[in-house]
Amino acid sequence: MQEIIHFILEVDKLKNVSRKVRPVGLNRYENSAEHRWQLGIFAASLAPYAEPNTDINHVIRMLLVHDIGEIDTGDTFVFVQGGWDERKAAELIAVKRIFGLLPQNQAAAFLELWEEFELSQTPEARFANSVDRAMPVLLNLANNGGSWLENGVSYERVVGRVGPQINEGCPALWDSIEEQLKDAHKNGWFGIPIS
Amino acid sequence: MQEIIHFILEVDKLKNVSRKVRPVGLNRYENSAEHRWQLGIFAASLAPYAEPNTDINHVIRMLLVHDIGEIDTGDTFVFVQGGWDERKAAELIAVKRIFGLLPQNQAAAFLELWEEFELSQTPEARFANSVDRAMPVLLNLANNGGSWLENGVSYERVVGRVGPQINEGCPALWDSIEEQLKDAHKNGWFGIPIS
Repeated sequence: MQEIIHFILEVDKLKNVSRKVRPVGLNRYENSAEHRWQLGIFAASLAPYAEPNTDINHVIRMLLVHDIGEIDTGDTFVFVQGGWDERKAAELIAVKRIFGLLPQNQAAAFLELWEEFELSQTPEARFANSVDRAMPVLLNLANNGGSWLENGVSYERVVGRVGPQINEGCPALWDSIEEQLKDAHKNGWFGIPIS
Repeated sequence: MQEIIHFILEVDKLKNVSRKVRPVGLNRYENSAEHRWQLGIFAASLAPYAEPNTDINHVIRMLLVHDIGEIDTGDTFVFVQGGWDERKAAELIAVKRIFGLLPQNQAAAFLELWEEFELSQTPEARFANSVDRAMPVLLNLANNGGSWLENGVSYERVVGRVGPQINEGCPALWDSIEEQLKDAHKNGWFGIPIS
């Protein structure tokens, strides 16, 4: 019990990990903890659009634990170019440390969820990755461009970077988002890349 | 799909609902969205201490959706005296409005989860309520009294208000917290009630 309490107070630090996207209409950036909550609800709501026989409970668990490594590494904006292998290696060290605060069985179960998400080879992991990629897009759309305008991210970069993963895990979601992105492009909600 | 996207952007507002407890070591109050994420992880971690055959996936779903009514009503500090029936009635109206943004089947499923949590008669609901009551206690303990000192909440009030629910849903958790509360009492981490 003491190990579990120690763990839950350690992961409290995720509330202080800032992301690059703002909640709808708010001036501050969202943090990784509230982001993870939203992904859980989003996955539950989107269940009818998942591949048949997708275990949504498993998806939700994957989504809840996945960002915990950012307590040590921080969040990296998805549109940063390069360095992803190094960042993922650092995150793996971090999640091993943090999950390792728990009794061994539970630590192993959480680490498996983390690795399944990263490999993105099961229907559950593909759906989880799709939801994870889609949510900040929806927030930026609701914020008239949001972090795309702030950070000089082009329409082509957004479609190329997040489109394939959203589409692979949930094609119906991508169909809807792709239409909205085209409209956003017409509205001038994307940035000019900083070379 | 449009209904689900509308819903997930509406519930984004939970990130702006402030609670009375602060994350460990931070100056700001926590919000209801990040709180709900933490409860999901806490329930998953605490699973070995749940009553046998408790469906932890069901617990996690209950915890993720439960505070959504606060988007309309705001959060009320658990130690406020009286008015709880009125507040719960207002919250029910709110969750019906917000879940009602979803297709009918999903709205009904979320409303059932909300009501099950409120009634607290299934092992899953009792465990969820226990976790929900315990987390702010653990945060206040980690913050040397936190919102108990800020708001004049006595040791007796804490034990009387949250003890029975924590104990009913997860006795082992209460055993650990009760010990910590006694130590906190010796440390002077409780407030003097404002009459």
